[in-house]
Amino acid sequence: MHGSPPQGPLVVALAFDGAPMFELSIPAEIFGLPRPEFGADWYRFALVSADGAMVRTGHGWELSVDGDLTLLERADMIVIPGWRPANPEVPAALRAAMLAAHARGARLASICSGAFLLAELGLLDGRRATTHWLHAPLLAQRYPRIAVASDILYADGGDVLTSAGSAAGIDLLLHIVRQDYGVARANAVAKRLVLPAQREGDQRQYDDSLRPPQQTDRLAALMARILESPAEKWPVNRLAAEAGMSLRTVARAFAARAGCAPGT
Amino acid sequence: MHGSPPQGPLVVALAFDGAPMFELSIPAEIFGLPRPEFGADWYRFALVSADGAMVRTGHGWELSVDGDLTLLERADMIVIPGWRPANPEVPAALRAAMLAAHARGARLASICSGAFLLAELGLLDGRRATTHWLHAPLLAQRYPRIAVASDILYADGGDVLTSAGSAAGIDLLLHIVRQDYGVARANAVAKRLVLPAQREGDQRQYDDSLRPPQQTDRLAALMARILESPAEKWPVNRLAAEAGMSLRTVARAFAARAGCAPGT
Repeated sequence: MHGSPPQGPLVVALAFDGAPMFELSIPAEIFGLPRPEFGADWYRFALVSADGAMVRTGHGWELSVDGDLTLLERADMIVIPGWRPANPEVPAALRAAMLAAHARGARLASICSGAFLLAELGLLDGRRATTHWLHAPLLAQRYPRIAVASDILYADGGDVLTSAGSAAGIDLLLHIVRQDYGVARANAVAKRLVLPAQREGDQRQYDDSLRPPQQTDRLAALMARILESPAEKWPVNRLAAEAGMSLRTVARAFAARAGCAPGT
Repeated sequence: MHGSPPQGPLVVALAFDGAPMFELSIPAEIFGLPRPEFGADWYRFALVSADGAMVRTGHGWELSVDGDLTLLERADMIVIPGWRPANPEVPAALRAAMLAAHARGARLASICSGAFLLAELGLLDGRRATTHWLHAPLLAQRYPRIAVASDILYADGGDVLTSAGSAAGIDLLLHIVRQDYGVARANAVAKRLVLPAQREGDQRQYDDSLRPPQQTDRLAALMARILESPAEKWPVNRLAAEAGMSLRTVARAFAARAGCAPGT
């Protein structure tokens, strides 16, 4: 009673040392589970690291993958489940593979701090893009050509898509399934995930009226102020000045709290 | 600026060959991320396998863990992120460790098919419990002493808690954080996960009226179109015209299916 193995778009997710376990598991769950009910017309999925070797996740666990960057040559979509906001430089081989994939039409989709990798490649210049609300000020400060939307769940730029932190990546990937296979299949995937109804990309990342922040230190107090005035500019040098920290320290502290890409 | 390392309850999640990556990552994300803003009074987290060796996840990737069953001797809470519904027998050493932990007061919390492990231990007999809707009929058939609630998100039985599949595990673990540390911290965790407001345990696992896989009538077809073009305006008079129903009828039918009034 099992259907044919899937023959549809090849989705490749990028693992790296420090990769966040939860964000990594999102594309695996959406694209990589057996769905015999959909037959052959469904995604194929692979997890890759730069050299095909195991990575060490942000929690410190070792994780094996399915292959190396050569899989990006055949990918129809590449998911970047996080990156290193404090140290976003992209190694040459990965940069070349990503740019080649994009040039031949592969879709690139980021979750959380994965937007920093796309930003480093210049692929977000002149575009509206998003990332986890914790990282948004740093993304806007470092890449002034990006129109950073810090409080939406995801931004669909066609060939390049970005989403906010953690669970908002689920919303983006369900949006992609909806585009590729229609609402009925997207809803079947959501139902198996035991998720509530669709969240739109422009839905706010959070609602502070429900979530009073705890102001336990200067950075927490500062973060609460950012949340209260997200429309204001919060470049990292302002964050540093107001928190009484160095640029490096404040960038690192923000990255540590977002938990999206602990490898700093 | 980092807080003290956490000294709070030790949460241990159980990995095993075939363990689902997404469900495994949920306790890691909720309990296992650095949260220096909470200081020392926060959970410690460890991932274990029966013998401390690597496991092979359901996707086939190898994953290392933090330790073996001896960690269960000190655990304040054990999370079971899944189990083997078709072959749920529990190896003797794991059975003994789980029962000993429960006997000395550790909380046991399951996600998805993890309820089958608790059921095998007899810990759900005479209780209300849940699992993923896909597995609920098998759970009820195999363990007739359990009051299986197949369409709730989670059931809090005090010392033994069960949740439905996948994302509903997030709801249960946030519920536990709310019990242990209050609503403000639970909301801060949800906010970092970029999750919407709290879902109650008795919320239904899914609502098929919002997810018409088959367009059995005009209203279902119309609702599918709304889901495909949510940015459009769908006032009730347009709904009525397109469905060929009166204003009253379409409003009532829509409310019955969607659980909310149509947009105005």
